[in-house]
Amino acid sequence: MTQVLDAQPDFKSSLATAQDEIERTLDALLPAPLGAEAPVAEAMRYATLGGGKRLRGFLVMASASLFGVPLAQSARAAAAIECIHAYSLIHDDLPCMDDDDLRRGKPTVHKAWDEAIATLAGDALQTEAFALLSAAETHPDPALRIELVASLARASGQYGMVGGQAVDIAAETSSVPLTLQQIERLQSLKTGALIRWSAEAGAILGRANADERAALTAFATQLGLAFQIRDDILDVEGDADAAGKRLRKDADAGKATFVSLLGLEPAKDRATALAQSAIDALARFGPAADPLRGAARFTISRGH
Amino acid sequence: MTQVLDAQPDFKSSLATAQDEIERTLDALLPAPLGAEAPVAEAMRYATLGGGKRLRGFLVMASASLFGVPLAQSARAAAAIECIHAYSLIHDDLPCMDDDDLRRGKPTVHKAWDEAIATLAGDALQTEAFALLSAAETHPDPALRIELVASLARASGQYGMVGGQAVDIAAETSSVPLTLQQIERLQSLKTGALIRWSAEAGAILGRANADERAALTAFATQLGLAFQIRDDILDVEGDADAAGKRLRKDADAGKATFVSLLGLEPAKDRATALAQSAIDALARFGPAADPLRGAARFTISRGH
Repeated sequence: MTQVLDAQPDFKSSLATAQDEIERTLDALLPAPLGAEAPVAEAMRYATLGGGKRLRGFLVMASASLFGVPLAQSARAAAAIECIHAYSLIHDDLPCMDDDDLRRGKPTVHKAWDEAIATLAGDALQTEAFALLSAAETHPDPALRIELVASLARASGQYGMVGGQAVDIAAETSSVPLTLQQIERLQSLKTGALIRWSAEAGAILGRANADERAALTAFATQLGLAFQIRDDILDVEGDADAAGKRLRKDADAGKATFVSLLGLEPAKDRATALAQSAIDALARFGPAADPLRGAARFTISRGH
Repeated sequence: MTQVLDAQPDFKSSLATAQDEIERTLDALLPAPLGAEAPVAEAMRYATLGGGKRLRGFLVMASASLFGVPLAQSARAAAAIECIHAYSLIHDDLPCMDDDDLRRGKPTVHKAWDEAIATLAGDALQTEAFALLSAAETHPDPALRIELVASLARASGQYGMVGGQAVDIAAETSSVPLTLQQIERLQSLKTGALIRWSAEAGAILGRANADERAALTAFATQLGLAFQIRDDILDVEGDADAAGKRLRKDADAGKATFVSLLGLEPAKDRATALAQSAIDALARFGPAADPLRGAARFTISRGH
């Protein structure tokens, strides 16, 4: 008997199910610390377990559930994207990057350990993502697994997330603020690529046809942009205690954001319109896609 | 017409052929800098092109040539391991790790750019290795490609190279020097795992049988240990100008090495015996394995 993520109309309970499943998968895959290398293993667990919204992992599992993919398979792809996400946060928090002391309400990895352990734990979490996807437990068909690996590499590397981080760093040292078009490109790379991959991974695992895959990609593209605009809004309006991280970073640094370029209310309107477009893209999937629709609504209403 | 790496008895000309092929492959795969993300792309090229012994890449290509694997395929797997090697050097050179200013006679990446660019360039080079292996150009069979990805992830991550770096860091902060057994484990993880993978990748690409694969693994295991012992000898006896990096680091730091534990002459004897065992492991391959035998001889005689 294989379990399939229920297409519950209630996003929150779908999210909770995905969160549990991802937590169990990561807990089983990341070894308990042992030997002289214990601090790195411990830091890897610290950065991935017991926290985070798991939005990316949820998107993998909720997309895969549209095609009846067994939970045990989609949870592994979800765990892989959460490893990539966690690695990017560890490195992004380093003093040479964003220099953050707090993440998810806890000290960042380089604060809890040191920069060397943080560098290595991030490195090994990236490796772990590819190890996870390449194992037969993720899917019996090697051609499908290699498609997951190739697409995740594309989304994470210099043409995806890391490329976006490089653009972000260049913007910070430039005296000319980014334009709206440049910020949209930055977002599409830095956060959009992993969010798009998450929905695409569900389509790959479910052997979706080209139209279904395009619909999920369109959904995730709009969702990713709405998510970033909401992040910029929360950076201005949010509560640091609830967020568990430093806020008003961008405003204090004088960085161009969707809010600084559009204004607060127009930014909210834009996020709402994007969430609606995301929902519209899911029309072909009927009520089975209600959790994904709920994710779009959550994205623009979340308080942190 | 596919080209196959000639089984030249002359190791140096085999190495030169592999070096050229790897250089061309990396040059074609790593894009010329463009746009705001240019510094990361430029740093990736700086760290991978125009230098390095390419021992790991050579081992991939020379092993693959035993089975008639086309150069275009083995050069891609060779480029992948050189990307992983380059990423590990960039991160290892960071101030929070070994804090080195010089690599291959040039400023290290964080000196030529900064720590943020170095962190990101290393991250993206790791990703690039998996992107490279997962593409159809590496081998038409997805099952074979996924085996390359899975084994490289194992060799690079917390059970391989990164695990070894973690052990190394723990040793540096410990007041008790490592024993010979602990140093052998450290070496087997930190440098041995990638060297073993290199020979195994040739076997995987060539669909070697279990005995052939075991022979290549045995060869690479002995070679890797001999290589590390020679590194420790050169750290004491070597010429920093020829090496293009700082020497006597370990001795100055009071770290246990093969030389400090065995003594200089016994360490040389051990390296020679290991190189001979490595050569013995290749008996089944006849003269076709002469370049690999040459690599074993080079490993213990090299001046840097």
